[in-house]
Amino acid sequence: MFKEGDWILIIYKNEKKYLKRLTPKGSLNVGKEVLKFKEVVGREEGFQKGNFSVFKPTIEDIILYGFRRKTQIIYPKDTFFIAFKLDIKNGSKVFEFGTGSGCTTAVLSRLAGEKGEIYSFESDPKFYKNAVENLKEFGFTNNVKMYNKDFSDADLEEESFDAGFVDVKEPWLYIEKVYKILKKGKCVGFLLPTTNQVSYLLREMKDFGNIEVLEIMLRYYKTNPERLRPEDTMVGHTGYLVFGRKL
Amino acid sequence: MFKEGDWILIIYKNEKKYLKRLTPKGSLNVGKEVLKFKEVVGREEGFQKGNFSVFKPTIEDIILYGFRRKTQIIYPKDTFFIAFKLDIKNGSKVFEFGTGSGCTTAVLSRLAGEKGEIYSFESDPKFYKNAVENLKEFGFTNNVKMYNKDFSDADLEEESFDAGFVDVKEPWLYIEKVYKILKKGKCVGFLLPTTNQVSYLLREMKDFGNIEVLEIMLRYYKTNPERLRPEDTMVGHTGYLVFGRKL
Amino acid sequence: MFKEGDWILIIYKNEKKYLKRLTPKGSLNVGKEVLKFKEVVGREEGFQKGNFSVFKPTIEDIILYGFRRKTQIIYPKDTFFIAFKLDIKNGSKVFEFGTGSGCTTAVLSRLAGEKGEIYSFESDPKFYKNAVENLKEFGFTNNVKMYNKDFSDADLEEESFDAGFVDVKEPWLYIEKVYKILKKGKCVGFLLPTTNQVSYLLREMKDFGNIEVLEIMLRYYKTNPERLRPEDTMVGHTGYLVFGRKL
Amino acid sequence: MFKEGDWILIIYKNEKKYLKRLTPKGSLNVGKEVLKFKEVVGREEGFQKGNFSVFKPTIEDIILYGFRRKTQIIYPKDTFFIAFKLDIKNGSKVFEFGTGSGCTTAVLSRLAGEKGEIYSFESDPKFYKNAVENLKEFGFTNNVKMYNKDFSDADLEEESFDAGFVDVKEPWLYIEKVYKILKKGKCVGFLLPTTNQVSYLLREMKDFGNIEVLEIMLRYYKTNPERLRPEDTMVGHTGYLVFGRKL
Repeated sequence: MFKEGDWILIIYKNEKKYLKRLTPKGSLNVGKEVLKFKEVVGREEGFQKGNFSVFKPTIEDIILYGFRRKTQIIYPKDTFFIAFKLDIKNGSKVFEFGTGSGCTTAVLSRLAGEKGEIYSFESDPKFYKNAVENLKEFGFTNNVKMYNKDFSDADLEEESFDAGFVDVKEPWLYIEKVYKILKKGKCVGFLLPTTNQVSYLLREMKDFGNIEVLEIMLRYYKTNPERLRPEDTMVGHTGYLVFGRKL
Repeated sequence: MFKEGDWILIIYKNEKKYLKRLTPKGSLNVGKEVLKFKEVVGREEGFQKGNFSVFKPTIEDIILYGFRRKTQIIYPKDTFFIAFKLDIKNGSKVFEFGTGSGCTTAVLSRLAGEKGEIYSFESDPKFYKNAVENLKEFGFTNNVKMYNKDFSDADLEEESFDAGFVDVKEPWLYIEKVYKILKKGKCVGFLLPTTNQVSYLLREMKDFGNIEVLEIMLRYYKTNPERLRPEDTMVGHTGYLVFGRKL
Repeated sequence: MFKEGDWILIIYKNEKKYLKRLTPKGSLNVGKEVLKFKEVVGREEGFQKGNFSVFKPTIEDIILYGFRRKTQIIYPKDTFFIAFKLDIKNGSKVFEFGTGSGCTTAVLSRLAGEKGEIYSFESDPKFYKNAVENLKEFGFTNNVKMYNKDFSDADLEEESFDAGFVDVKEPWLYIEKVYKILKKGKCVGFLLPTTNQVSYLLREMKDFGNIEVLEIMLRYYKTNPERLRPEDTMVGHTGYLVFGRKL
Repeated sequence: MFKEGDWILIIYKNEKKYLKRLTPKGSLNVGKEVLKFKEVVGREEGFQKGNFSVFKPTIEDIILYGFRRKTQIIYPKDTFFIAFKLDIKNGSKVFEFGTGSGCTTAVLSRLAGEKGEIYSFESDPKFYKNAVENLKEFGFTNNVKMYNKDFSDADLEEESFDAGFVDVKEPWLYIEKVYKILKKGKCVGFLLPTTNQVSYLLREMKDFGNIEVLEIMLRYYKTNPERLRPEDTMVGHTGYLVFGRKL
């Protein structure tokens, strides 16, 4: 049952989504319709009123509509793939640099489970502060350690990490450190927006095997069963993903 | 360190992958090169010899190269997305119908963690037997309960599941049952190869909200940094994914 | 040299495009920059002033920015493909139904050359009038005959057409007529937005061979050589193309 | 009516295509079925026997199945787009370097019509010879002039071309020449397989406006109306297209 203070996902006509804090005086207006939040308190998930339906947010909803973003978004389509591709499991010890707005951190945290450990580094104080708040607000902190420092300055044990993810402009500057702290044979992933960056990075990955470069395209369809067809517009690009394993 | 009986992933020239059982007399021939397995025993992950490099298989490797398939493959690009999209977390109780070769089961199991419960149903005895062997062989059984029966015949508590996934030819036949056993507001996913099936299913999903239909396209690139370009061929289609939440 | 009355394509910073009539008193304001048209008169193509550059419009520019549209746009990526796919050449006799805004008509006309004949039918008087004006305005009329009538009512000689293109909601209603008037072995094309329409049409194409169904996806890239990457958004769908040849 | 010596396109079960010379003793075996060519002589296009159907080849069939290739194929999806994008029309004067196997030459020739002139240059004698034969064999020579020489050595009048297309490894070496011989404001196109080449080229196109970089993806669908779905595999990449106009 929904109670005051909960985050709720409100969907209007299967078209628009809103992630809101359930406050007794709150309300949402879409077109000429109003959803008063006091009507939601005490209801169960899936509650409907008019064209509104109300749910608890999933991890995807939280990332897309809940997290405040001070950096470029990393899309769920990419992070969901990355987390499994890095072979993270309950108990994995994982590093991340940079934290950004915490989107990937949340996903890595979820897959690493209760016994996992995520060490996440962000050098920009504003981004760091924002990510800490995002992750705290939505409950992704129990297995995450966050540091407001450059990855170069991190004092990390050699060959101690099961996986790692790097999302910074010049990841090749950190490739030696990545190599040093990964356990033998383990995976690291990178997200890079441009082809030039991918070329630069690949040149520096000589000590890694099983190199893969790929991109994921997600195409949404309209949901009218009598007029099934893709949406008119789609996201054309988020980034290239690069993966490798320590030799 | 690799020891006898381990499953090992052997990569040849960053091009070909083989998942093999590490037996003392085993060996792998590619072109004119031979990797004798006795040389691998006692080595660490990332071991290289000639153009071979040797790793422990990730969950993706296991699904793609380890599982024996008696059914159409479900690709990791799809299952990785599905598992997170269904908002599965440590402790989630999830149903799956049908099990197929167990690919999705493995991924759901991994995300549901130690406290999770996966109830997986497969009506075909051959598929069931094969999936049981696959999941046992690669250690995905601790939170999975498998049943060789049709989903209709499953005796499952109402409103008890946190998520569900259905991958059968005519999923609309089971939509009432899906609705009944899901907790309010929770997500179900479907994978369907044809547009006709998507239309049929959508017509029957009146009691679900937040309906989404999408497809995921994965494009691999050649990894030469001086000649960066997509691979000549790609997988053109695996299936359409449909998601909804119980209203 | 540009002269009064010409249509001119004005490009601002390789980002924005405008198709304008060159009038002596005309001007274009973008941001804080102004291009006075009297400065363009007498200049040659490729003329630059500030961040503006001025060209004569190509057939693509005319369709995208010159034609007034009262119907859904058909994109050049699709029409360019269709025209050649139908094997049109100088002298081909081609039918089209419906004319829409005349986009495809223009492309068919161009490929059919001086000796070609395009018979284009549009049942809606408003669309018809608009298309006539578009094609006249931009000079695509010398080999085009336009009719404001339903295709069913057209009095056309049997087995007399080298190719045909149909872009209406229910093309299967006209499939017998299409069959009748095409020369043996010749191609017809269809553009359909939804998968349901494609299924309906395919069921009615029993008398056609070499059936093909396809879609064309066009992805634009940002043109900064140091940061090469696809545009953030792309057109996700225009329509499915269906082709067949009379048996 | 088909007569001896014709090129014929034979389609088997809407799945396999063969482009053959119609010789009186010829025949085609597919599985257990035989099509004897003497049965085809005197028949009309669209002739069917068993699972075979017989057509005259379209320009696409000729390029895909008729032309002998000694170079990487350029796909119709790309050339059809290029020809119109370059705004070629009846009477256009167009240059091409290099000719390759003549695929693009054929398409440019078709759109340039009877009054058009295609000047095509190929420095490799083997490629040149093969392209000459291809174009002659299939009747694309009346408006094409072919030269077995490097584009640098071509003696071409300044500002005399309406359009141009360059498909060589290092097109930036010829960019000054391209600029010189194009009429003001007119378009040039390039096809490049790798992102590195696109970056190199873009750096050298300072004197061109309306720069566009794009790629075209073609997705074929299975044609069963009750099981409509994309083909399992698709072409993942042919090349990036770059266009610009002389300033």
